Amino acid sequence: MSEKPTKPLNESRRKFLQTAGLVPAALYLDGCASAGGQKSSTGSVAGSQDSMMDFVAAPLDTVRIGLIGMGRRGLPMLRLFLAIDGVEIMAISDPYAPAIDNAKKLFNELDVAQPTYYGNGEHDYRNMLARDDIDVVYIATPWKWHTPMSVEAMEHGKHALVEVPAALTIDECWQLVDTSERTQLNCMMMENVCYGREELMALNMVRQGVLGELLHSEAAYIHELRWQMVDMEEGTGSWRTDWHTRRNANLYPTHGLGPIAQYMNINRGDRFDYLSSMSSPALGRQLYAKREFPADHIRNQAKYICGDMNTSLIKTARGRTIMVQHDTTTPRPYTRHNLIQGTNGVYGQYPDRFALESEGEFHEWQHDMSDLQARYDHELWKRTKAGAEALGGHGGMDYVMLWRTIYCLRNSLPLDQNVYDAAAWSVVIPLSETSNADRGNSQDFPDFTRGAWKTASSFEIRDVVSASVASHNNNQAAA
Amino acid sequence: MSEKPTKPLNESRRKFLQTAGLVPAALYLDGCASAGGQKSSTGSVAGSQDSMMDFVAAPLDTVRIGLIGMGRRGLPMLRLFLAIDGVEIMAISDPYAPAIDNAKKLFNELDVAQPTYYGNGEHDYRNMLARDDIDVVYIATPWKWHTPMSVEAMEHGKHALVEVPAALTIDECWQLVDTSERTQLNCMMMENVCYGREELMALNMVRQGVLGELLHSEAAYIHELRWQMVDMEEGTGSWRTDWHTRRNANLYPTHGLGPIAQYMNINRGDRFDYLSSMSSPALGRQLYAKREFPADHIRNQAKYICGDMNTSLIKTARGRTIMVQHDTTTPRPYTRHNLIQGTNGVYGQYPDRFALESEGEFHEWQHDMSDLQARYDHELWKRTKAGAEALGGHGGMDYVMLWRTIYCLRNSLPLDQNVYDAAAWSVVIPLSETSNADRGNSQDFPDFTRGAWKTASSFEIRDVVSASVASHNNNQAAA
Repeated sequence: MSEKPTKPLNESRRKFLQTAGLVPAALYLDGCASAGGQKSSTGSVAGSQDSMMDFVAAPLDTVRIGLIGMGRRGLPMLRLFLAIDGVEIMAISDPYAPAIDNAKKLFNELDVAQPTYYGNGEHDYRNMLARDDIDVVYIATPWKWHTPMSVEAMEHGKHALVEVPAALTIDECWQLVDTSERTQLNCMMMENVCYGREELMALNMVRQGVLGELLHSEAAYIHELRWQMVDMEEGTGSWRTDWHTRRNANLYPTHGLGPIAQYMNINRGDRFDYLSSMSSPALGRQLYAKREFPADHIRNQAKYICGDMNTSLIKTARGRTIMVQHDTTTPRPYTRHNLIQGTNGVYGQYPDRFALESEGEFHEWQHDMSDLQARYDHELWKRTKAGAEALGGHGGMDYVMLWRTIYCLRNSLPLDQNVYDAAAWSVVIPLSETSNADRGNSQDFPDFTRGAWKTASSFEIRDVVSASVASHNNNQAAA
Repeated sequence: MSEKPTKPLNESRRKFLQTAGLVPAALYLDGCASAGGQKSSTGSVAGSQDSMMDFVAAPLDTVRIGLIGMGRRGLPMLRLFLAIDGVEIMAISDPYAPAIDNAKKLFNELDVAQPTYYGNGEHDYRNMLARDDIDVVYIATPWKWHTPMSVEAMEHGKHALVEVPAALTIDECWQLVDTSERTQLNCMMMENVCYGREELMALNMVRQGVLGELLHSEAAYIHELRWQMVDMEEGTGSWRTDWHTRRNANLYPTHGLGPIAQYMNINRGDRFDYLSSMSSPALGRQLYAKREFPADHIRNQAKYICGDMNTSLIKTARGRTIMVQHDTTTPRPYTRHNLIQGTNGVYGQYPDRFALESEGEFHEWQHDMSDLQARYDHELWKRTKAGAEALGGHGGMDYVMLWRTIYCLRNSLPLDQNVYDAAAWSVVIPLSETSNADRGNSQDFPDFTRGAWKTASSFEIRDVVSASVASHNNNQAAA
């Protein structure tokens, strides 16, 4: 299904139940029974509301977490979860024994009680989901598992925190939205880049009007990752490489797009309207395989179809424009662009720079950020930076994200990224694929909010307090 | 007409004569009579050929030039023409008396014999075109005159050298192509940026394979020109501002796109296939007018509709992608991007930078250009740089362009930019306008070459010799 009726919800939900195909029917029945017949472990303060816009759940004193996926992403995120006060790690699932071992070592190292492990094959996570002492499931698995696991987690009464991208198809996006609305549980895509110091500062500048009225922005994930092709049995490259043989699209839009969407109040007064996309030829991975692997290697037998550089344009309902690029193949420096332009000038990264008419000279880029930081560093950054700087995680953004999300869950605040954001940011993947295959003709974004974007209030990171640190934090800093 | 039959030419020419509307019918009759019944002052070595691809005219010992437009562009270009050996300035036309006075002063200053002046109203240039002692007409007038004057110049047996953009509509593009083919006279759009030191070096790098196989490129004209809105009676802003009230498009694509098109061999083995375009809101000029002019000023009565930032995507027949932006409104630093990306890495400008796998490190931008310049400075730059550095003109590119073009005309070489380039680079204006108005749906480029792009040889700047200087050059350097 490419579109959903905006109302009534009940009808759309029936349609969803009839048409959803990726999750086994039995699970849906379980899920429906669970949502209808037994109390969710988290519940909902506003139980009768349908929309998840500004949704708040009942406060959790301790956030009991189960993690699925203990690989290159899951393990360092586990370390950060363990550094946050009010978090209890209940269980960890991963079918790969060495990954479980890594987690065990970490708990020993930190002198924290071991959780329960679920490592008996790819589907043992379902036994973890069946427990009734878990509030939140964090999912850091290969992309194809993101939506099914998120849906299953919510069906089992857990909030889903899922790594990027949350979904790979339009249908999966609707599955997330429908399930979150029906179960009244959070589905947050963990877009860590939204919590970078620079992104938070830019958000603050935009909200304070420093850039004037917004006009245009540029986002990207340009990150040479050909070297991951060496991963064969496990590791990101073992499955990520395959996507380059299966889809010609902007495969990974959300790191660049998430912060931009927040600046622009996407789903909160504005929304993505339509997208046009064009991919360059796909040459780099073939060349790399030829150079790095034997002629009969599987990497030399594959046909890589994902254009090395994808450039997509998005128009918003308020007429603003966004360029978002994807290139994980070409040898060039990393950038997410993070450029935001308004009537008063421009702020961008890679390198950090700005040009603002109100600051005087705008004909040359300014590169000294110290004054802007002094004036516009975000309160959230200021109040978490001690932990962020001590614990790291992509320059601190991982820690800030986890700290903030746990804080919201413990204090009945809306999570900063809701299921509509997860869907709107992720759906760029299938829309870019379709547009690119159709001579760049534009594709309409579904309105996943079902009209709620029109009245939703401006995006703000509210009720920021100073971060408290977990009692075992000193152990970590020493680790 | 939005498309033309590719063959036969005669039929398309008949259709052109029937449908062309911008130039008075009488002029066409004059033109036809001239082309058919009397010898062109320049003639054609390959008189029977239809296509203007690689067209060469009979050599001119002295290039006798008439200039139309003696404003902010025409006057400095006149000074450069006068610095080139083998040039004779026969006549100058401009309806604005002070512009003519500026030219007269320059001739006196250089102690060069005065040409004939045509300043009796907007159409006195036609009396200049009627002369039979002019080989080449250089046109530096407001945009709306570019195509009509170029067509009339060719109809009167003169080569047309026209400032950018050469045309404003698809129909005008075809007028230029049809007229150039029928008259077998050059119509060169004077895209000076193609002659910048950096652009020539990038061309050389691409041809030598330094960037690998080409994938993607980025071009722009981002140049804050709100200040031109103060021009009311004369000067660029007096007419350019109006376009911002009339068209929502990429109004000025060729400076960024010309060099990129040459790197990519557009019209010579590849061609622009289709384009998608989106414009941001148009806010900056209203704000500027409100700030800078009285409330009842004409600049405050206008409605500005051209989106402050236009971003367009182009796909080529070989599957490569090009992003081209236009923004003359937002307060931000100048850039043409000039970014060209291949399988071996990237070269770009603003700031100058490169990252090449074959050079070792590519994860950080390299900014020291000295080694690249030593290896890849183009022969044309090296052989003209003395004059370019002495005489200037946008960093020397104007001088190099004029010197090179005069050299080609005197030595029976194809001009570096033919009428198909003029049409393909300029047609981005109407195509971006249509796409932007149609929710970013893509627009097909007409194949102005009528298929000749498939067999045309790679773009090269051939037969480069050292620049000779005009005998009165010393006067100029002293001026």
